[in-house]
Amino acid sequence: MTSQALADLKPLAITMGDAAGIGPEIIAKAYRDDPMAMQGCFVVGDVATLRRAARVVAPAGCLPLPVACITEAIDALPVPPHCIPVLQPRADLGLIPWGQVSGAAGAFAGDCVVWAARAALNGSVSAMVTAPLHKEALHAAGLPFSAFPGHTELLQSEAARHLGVSVAQLPVRMMLANSELRTVLVSIHMSLRDAIAAVTFANIVETIQITHDALSRLLGRAPRIAVAGLNPHAGEGGLFGRDEIELIQPAIEAARQKGQDVSGPYAPDTIFMRARQKSSGEREFDVVIAMYHDQGLIPVKYLGVEDGVNVTLGLPLVRTSPDHGTAFDIAGSGRADPRSLLQAIRMARALN
Amino acid sequence: MTSQALADLKPLAITMGDAAGIGPEIIAKAYRDDPMAMQGCFVVGDVATLRRAARVVAPAGCLPLPVACITEAIDALPVPPHCIPVLQPRADLGLIPWGQVSGAAGAFAGDCVVWAARAALNGSVSAMVTAPLHKEALHAAGLPFSAFPGHTELLQSEAARHLGVSVAQLPVRMMLANSELRTVLVSIHMSLRDAIAAVTFANIVETIQITHDALSRLLGRAPRIAVAGLNPHAGEGGLFGRDEIELIQPAIEAARQKGQDVSGPYAPDTIFMRARQKSSGEREFDVVIAMYHDQGLIPVKYLGVEDGVNVTLGLPLVRTSPDHGTAFDIAGSGRADPRSLLQAIRMARALN
Repeated sequence: MTSQALADLKPLAITMGDAAGIGPEIIAKAYRDDPMAMQGCFVVGDVATLRRAARVVAPAGCLPLPVACITEAIDALPVPPHCIPVLQPRADLGLIPWGQVSGAAGAFAGDCVVWAARAALNGSVSAMVTAPLHKEALHAAGLPFSAFPGHTELLQSEAARHLGVSVAQLPVRMMLANSELRTVLVSIHMSLRDAIAAVTFANIVETIQITHDALSRLLGRAPRIAVAGLNPHAGEGGLFGRDEIELIQPAIEAARQKGQDVSGPYAPDTIFMRARQKSSGEREFDVVIAMYHDQGLIPVKYLGVEDGVNVTLGLPLVRTSPDHGTAFDIAGSGRADPRSLLQAIRMARALN
Repeated sequence: MTSQALADLKPLAITMGDAAGIGPEIIAKAYRDDPMAMQGCFVVGDVATLRRAARVVAPAGCLPLPVACITEAIDALPVPPHCIPVLQPRADLGLIPWGQVSGAAGAFAGDCVVWAARAALNGSVSAMVTAPLHKEALHAAGLPFSAFPGHTELLQSEAARHLGVSVAQLPVRMMLANSELRTVLVSIHMSLRDAIAAVTFANIVETIQITHDALSRLLGRAPRIAVAGLNPHAGEGGLFGRDEIELIQPAIEAARQKGQDVSGPYAPDTIFMRARQKSSGEREFDVVIAMYHDQGLIPVKYLGVEDGVNVTLGLPLVRTSPDHGTAFDIAGSGRADPRSLLQAIRMARALN
């Protein structure tokens, strides 16, 4: 049996996210609308909260999807279509009002992420897909969760503990992908000034390596990696900045020496257009390495965020998530769109 | 007679651009394909070079469009459709090989721009649309043209001389527009570090003012202006940089005090998506002010550059240009696409 076939037999964990947000209802909608895609998935969450979500998304005159309580990941496999398997990692949360910051919801959501991370690290699930957390709720939850700005840092911490290394030894990168473009970011949540300072030879080489490894698994071949410049026109030969000459070009050379299919640095204003998949299905590159948050996220989000997926690269587990937040303003209305979650599930399977 | 009707009676000057590039052939194609749009336009350029371009774009078995030599702008008005009126500002250039840098071509192209700028400043043409220059050819032309990085600086210099002011008293901004998005840039051709330093209260207020004035003329009403932040998530309340709090927000307030319809600062990764015209024809904002070159140009170019238009705002003349370069690699092949030039002509008329 191939490793792919083995992975197919493993359940996939979906963490519920913040109970006051749209996480539970996009999960229920995904089970309602695409049972094939959800086969083998289960929710790490609160049973009553998922039951409420199933009611919210039930079409008029229809019964809500049933919720099956499971106690081990493997129990998810025989659950029939249109039934939502939920594994409750600890005592009931109780119903949290929609759209309100709640420390209890933050702590419960954090516990779900920790449970799923440990299951992914010990191999009892093939991957984890995370519905959105609410940063303020996480903060209101107190320690340990208030110490983590979001999923990524929490997962880094769990993975480092699992491997017995420091967090610094587990560099991660964020990949954003939709149906036509993939981009991996050298840095994410920091000021643009700090992001420029983070454009170092070592960071770029590390980003290329992490990207090469992850995309090789996804595509089954070496990815064609384009590296964007930092400055307009990629520095115009040094006229508009020397970062390309002194840092980016040498990093690309170093990656090429390792046999990776990397080129650039390219003018930032046209490389995303070039890498975008055209209607013919062709794309010039498989992924673009962006030098800072907005350089990569502006093009990925430009056409709309419905099918955007966020992937954490570099961890010893597969984690993807939809590319949107808790949307407290529409939580409980049944209007939230499950497409990004479904894409995240497809991407998680493809990364195994 | 309204000023609009008067402007309609004035000819519109199109500068030929570098003779070795695609400028002449996209002009000839525009006359070939859209005679209505070209009515009242004339070329400031070299007659023999335009004749060669007309031959290159003539369909197999068809005669090339005829070239009419004119000596004054006003002579362009009675020229019939499918005929290219050319005003030669000085002695013949001689045929320049396609795709090669030539100081003679650079100097001739520069002379055409100066001629058209003076005609626009003295009111004998309604606007100028500029086909692309080649920076190296301009440099090879020697003084005065080698002193100018491109059109914008050359036009600033001509306008300052015309008004008897210094160039510093004539601040300009670049607007990039296509059929679904408009963006005005606080700064353009400098390193990202220098661009961050150029994000000052005064520069933002000035950019908003220039944008408000130009778009009011274009739309016939006050434009809804969105201002992007500089940092990820527009600084996330100061966590990722304080430029939004200390500079951008106060500049927006100052513009609002003047009665301008301005809001922001918005998260850069979603504001362009929000301002993009949707299939319904709706858009949330008329224009986005971008804090640096690539922030605005990545989204404008993402869907392809075929109909992108570059507009110089702030000058006492109307100047637009196609959003592409000389494309030396395909010059003379007849493959160049005239859509961006045609859009630039439409935009120039709309700005009168």
